[in-house]
Amino acid sequence: MTIRLWRNLLVAAVLGLCGAASPVWAQSADPLPSWNDSAVKTDILDFVARVTTDGSPDYVPPQDRIATFDNDGTLWVEQPLYTQFVFVIDRVKAVSNQHPEWKTKEPFKSALDGNTAKLLTYGEKGAIALITATHSGMTTVEFNDTVNAWLKTAKHPRFKRPYTDLTYKPMIELLEYLRANGFMTFIVSGGGIEFMRAYTEQCYGIPPWHVVGSAGKTEFRMWDASPTLVKLPDLLFFDDGPGKAEGINHYIGRQPIFAFGNSIGDKEMLEWTANCQGLCFMGLVHHDDAVREYAYGPDSDVGRFPVALMEHAEAVGWDVVSMKNDWKEIFSWAKP
Amino acid sequence: MTIRLWRNLLVAAVLGLCGAASPVWAQSADPLPSWNDSAVKTDILDFVARVTTDGSPDYVPPQDRIATFDNDGTLWVEQPLYTQFVFVIDRVKAVSNQHPEWKTKEPFKSALDGNTAKLLTYGEKGAIALITATHSGMTTVEFNDTVNAWLKTAKHPRFKRPYTDLTYKPMIELLEYLRANGFMTFIVSGGGIEFMRAYTEQCYGIPPWHVVGSAGKTEFRMWDASPTLVKLPDLLFFDDGPGKAEGINHYIGRQPIFAFGNSIGDKEMLEWTANCQGLCFMGLVHHDDAVREYAYGPDSDVGRFPVALMEHAEAVGWDVVSMKNDWKEIFSWAKP
Repeated sequence: MTIRLWRNLLVAAVLGLCGAASPVWAQSADPLPSWNDSAVKTDILDFVARVTTDGSPDYVPPQDRIATFDNDGTLWVEQPLYTQFVFVIDRVKAVSNQHPEWKTKEPFKSALDGNTAKLLTYGEKGAIALITATHSGMTTVEFNDTVNAWLKTAKHPRFKRPYTDLTYKPMIELLEYLRANGFMTFIVSGGGIEFMRAYTEQCYGIPPWHVVGSAGKTEFRMWDASPTLVKLPDLLFFDDGPGKAEGINHYIGRQPIFAFGNSIGDKEMLEWTANCQGLCFMGLVHHDDAVREYAYGPDSDVGRFPVALMEHAEAVGWDVVSMKNDWKEIFSWAKP
Repeated sequence: MTIRLWRNLLVAAVLGLCGAASPVWAQSADPLPSWNDSAVKTDILDFVARVTTDGSPDYVPPQDRIATFDNDGTLWVEQPLYTQFVFVIDRVKAVSNQHPEWKTKEPFKSALDGNTAKLLTYGEKGAIALITATHSGMTTVEFNDTVNAWLKTAKHPRFKRPYTDLTYKPMIELLEYLRANGFMTFIVSGGGIEFMRAYTEQCYGIPPWHVVGSAGKTEFRMWDASPTLVKLPDLLFFDDGPGKAEGINHYIGRQPIFAFGNSIGDKEMLEWTANCQGLCFMGLVHHDDAVREYAYGPDSDVGRFPVALMEHAEAVGWDVVSMKNDWKEIFSWAKP
């Protein structure tokens, strides 16, 4: 049995369904079959060949092959709302009978009314109020169970499928391809670390300890002689924008040589990666496919991919993936 | 080539010298040759066999084989002072010409005078003052370079060897044995995360992202168009006592099934581990060997292993390693 096959079997044993088809290696000699043969794919294949070929001037030893990926909008759908935000609204509704005051108190009222447009006007402060109310006061085990139960039942409003089906097939292929080439793949996301950890291993083959995200504080308590971690309403770490570079240092402790994002919140992660000693790869996913997914790039006022980021990417040579042109398929369950 | 040999070659390629002899697998069929054939060794071998044997009622899949180790006093010598504290004192001396006020200001004065006894009377507050002064105001890269340079030159006062030579051979064998059996080995230490990460990969085969420790905040800044992380004088996370259980959740995100410590600061990590669903192993290193190392267990007023912890370990069935009786060798360079 070859090393690669052995590793792939291990990965396959952990990787669940999540809308993914059978593992890449079983399908094709092409490691990225869902990518069109365009410049971005060539750049990725070329980069990996150069850093993994022993004797190449760009060779990087396996322990330095760190790859970091944003999550929302880079590995799975983030429109019309971040999935975790949908979860938060559903949790507000689920526990509202314990909070009669929410019926008249914003931003809870808008959440209960399903008035997302108004809810979004409360901005970051409103989001923090809702997250705090729904992400604390329970144990870490209880929270994890709640997320898992929600992921099994909640469905995306447009695609009518579980959110875990809305992972991007080309990106899962890319994660597997990098790992098959000795890379360690990490998520570096502004999203809540414990929310993501509930599904990243099954959906992306990324275990909890390779997930970097925003985190709340916890408190160790002995309850009936059983150790428990209680989630507190205090922020420990905010992993977005400059926080992504800080989070990479805090959690991973080594500079990436490969990074992929899709928004202005990923700029510092990409800059930090671009500062690597040798060859490095920086990529951005451009959502320009309203037919198969969504279109909210520099030409729209939705999302966080401004014109300035596109210009910067072009100026410094970061690869920009056009979902429309570079991806043959987006979801494993959809017709190409 | 077998899978195990391939993995061992990879590990050997990364593992440096650090006082370690050639890798275990090259020496003997016994995976723990530096351990005497006493009850603790039997318990370890038995535990690993039970959780790794497919079909065993205690079988644990590889992705759940999390093992966590304290560092100071568990993986390397912590007497007469924590190594990082020696580094801190040396740094105070090295930069004191930029701080003339330290000559008369405690705890800096005692550090400059080499008066360790007096320095220790300033307790945690004094330690934090010294750590803050020496661990902030530089970039993460500069700090890492400083630690590396110090580790190459500083020597332990009794053993007259670099501190990285003072790792425990039996524990390095244990780390390698666990990894060879599909475990992921993590450090969970009260020590500074960036100080440890400078040497854990080379000395223990533990990469930076498997190191959990106390951490300061950093700030992302662009300096001359280059991204930089500056170390700030603010604590982000304190990883000792209950903080070890919280840190395991924060950094690793999965409960260990195997943990080793040596002090009261490890109690919550061991309790959190003991709360595992199936079979789990909890161990404590008891320093009772004044001839080959140090003796500072429950019978002494040095260190942090009180009588109550020994009684608790006996009551709940945690394994206690007697360095004197259970370890055939302690350091790879010393005569057995």
